[in-house]
Amino acid sequence: MFRRLKLIVAYDGAPFAGWQSQKHGNTIQDHLERAFERIGGKRIRLHGAGRTDAGVHALGQCAHVDLADSKLKATDWTRALNATLPPQIRVLKCMFVSGDFHARLSAEGKVYRYRVWTGAVLPPLEYGRAWHVAQPLDAARIRKAARLFVGRHDFRAFAANRGHPEPDTTRTLHSVTVQRAGRFLALEFDGDGFLYKMVRLMVGSIVDCGRERVTPAEVAAQLRSAVAAPRRMVAPAGGLFLVRVRY
Amino acid sequence: MFRRLKLIVAYDGAPFAGWQSQKHGNTIQDHLERAFERIGGKRIRLHGAGRTDAGVHALGQCAHVDLADSKLKATDWTRALNATLPPQIRVLKCMFVSGDFHARLSAEGKVYRYRVWTGAVLPPLEYGRAWHVAQPLDAARIRKAARLFVGRHDFRAFAANRGHPEPDTTRTLHSVTVQRAGRFLALEFDGDGFLYKMVRLMVGSIVDCGRERVTPAEVAAQLRSAVAAPRRMVAPAGGLFLVRVRY
Repeated sequence: MFRRLKLIVAYDGAPFAGWQSQKHGNTIQDHLERAFERIGGKRIRLHGAGRTDAGVHALGQCAHVDLADSKLKATDWTRALNATLPPQIRVLKCMFVSGDFHARLSAEGKVYRYRVWTGAVLPPLEYGRAWHVAQPLDAARIRKAARLFVGRHDFRAFAANRGHPEPDTTRTLHSVTVQRAGRFLALEFDGDGFLYKMVRLMVGSIVDCGRERVTPAEVAAQLRSAVAAPRRMVAPAGGLFLVRVRY
Repeated sequence: MFRRLKLIVAYDGAPFAGWQSQKHGNTIQDHLERAFERIGGKRIRLHGAGRTDAGVHALGQCAHVDLADSKLKATDWTRALNATLPPQIRVLKCMFVSGDFHARLSAEGKVYRYRVWTGAVLPPLEYGRAWHVAQPLDAARIRKAARLFVGRHDFRAFAANRGHPEPDTTRTLHSVTVQRAGRFLALEFDGDGFLYKMVRLMVGSIVDCGRERVTPAEVAAQLRSAVAAPRRMVAPAGGLFLVRVRY
């Protein structure tokens, strides 16, 4: 018998080599798995809703783990994990869920936020937390480019070229919200799923529209082509935040 | 002949050992002096408005430097310094000023902000940028304690015990502003000058009032006594921000 524990996790991506376990052990998953082992005395396997790259932050990443004969309450797990984890990783909430919940397979969607600083000098406390684009961005073009991605599309042109391409590269983007606050530009993407590097590639194109390196028509053609262009602008990891996973 | 350049500098205090030059060279002053030397080819001496401790941040620290035969414009200095400095230190502005301006001696006052997070779990992106006080704080007591410090007082009881005490420990605090936003508490101190560790000691007492470890009357008596109590609460460095220097 086991009990399945669901976790909501926030982290500063800067000190870690991304979510997924690696040999060196300095990933979010590694730190969480070690914390469970230290508290419960058993090695466990953590299942995340999805990977995040090195430098990408999370306000509400989700994961689950199966615990054999744990006598701790869910709130005790939250406290014990936070007492063990590095302070740049925090468990916001733990809750026991039914055995048919799966952090990745049950996810119905995700929300990502991307932050851009458009002023001449990046405030030092924003270093690694926003993309510094020291150019004026045309707001109308930004909005136009952002709207292009909304809907159901084959996003192959906006996915990383990897050895093993996803069999199905069609995703539905429910909305892209553009917000400006002073010299900050925030883009929020709500969709049923995201391909590897998809948000950063979309942001790269949207910003390139805003600074008139490409036209919205070119971005639209790129999306329709479903072929990765030879040179693409990938927004840096540090500006990206996984806001929440929807179930 | 020299020209005096005034700088407004922002920094993330986390990666550095404070403002003041040290042998190991990893202070804000050291990084700035090395940047000037690399650009201008000459060793210079930077004069700051005041020191900040390791971990303390600045949104608008001020400094000056005397430059012999510099042909660069002030805006060129801003650009060249930022191209040389680590990204956690940014020069927001440079301007040439008259030779009787002095970053420390001409300062008429300073504004400091202190941030406290009162929720159960500190958001990981706030680590090193807010004091985590995981207890409810009584708002009325916080305001009452904060008001005690406003005015002209001998702040000896709220200064660090050092080998060389300041000859004059009287300062005027123009205002202490208390702001709440969700689980954040921000305290802003505007005064004609601050003794070493004075803000962090005041914040320690104000927060201790808010969590009912001491009473406002005890804090008032402490201030009147002008004697450092044997055990004092010093708020951690990471929550402190030098907002600006007034001239």
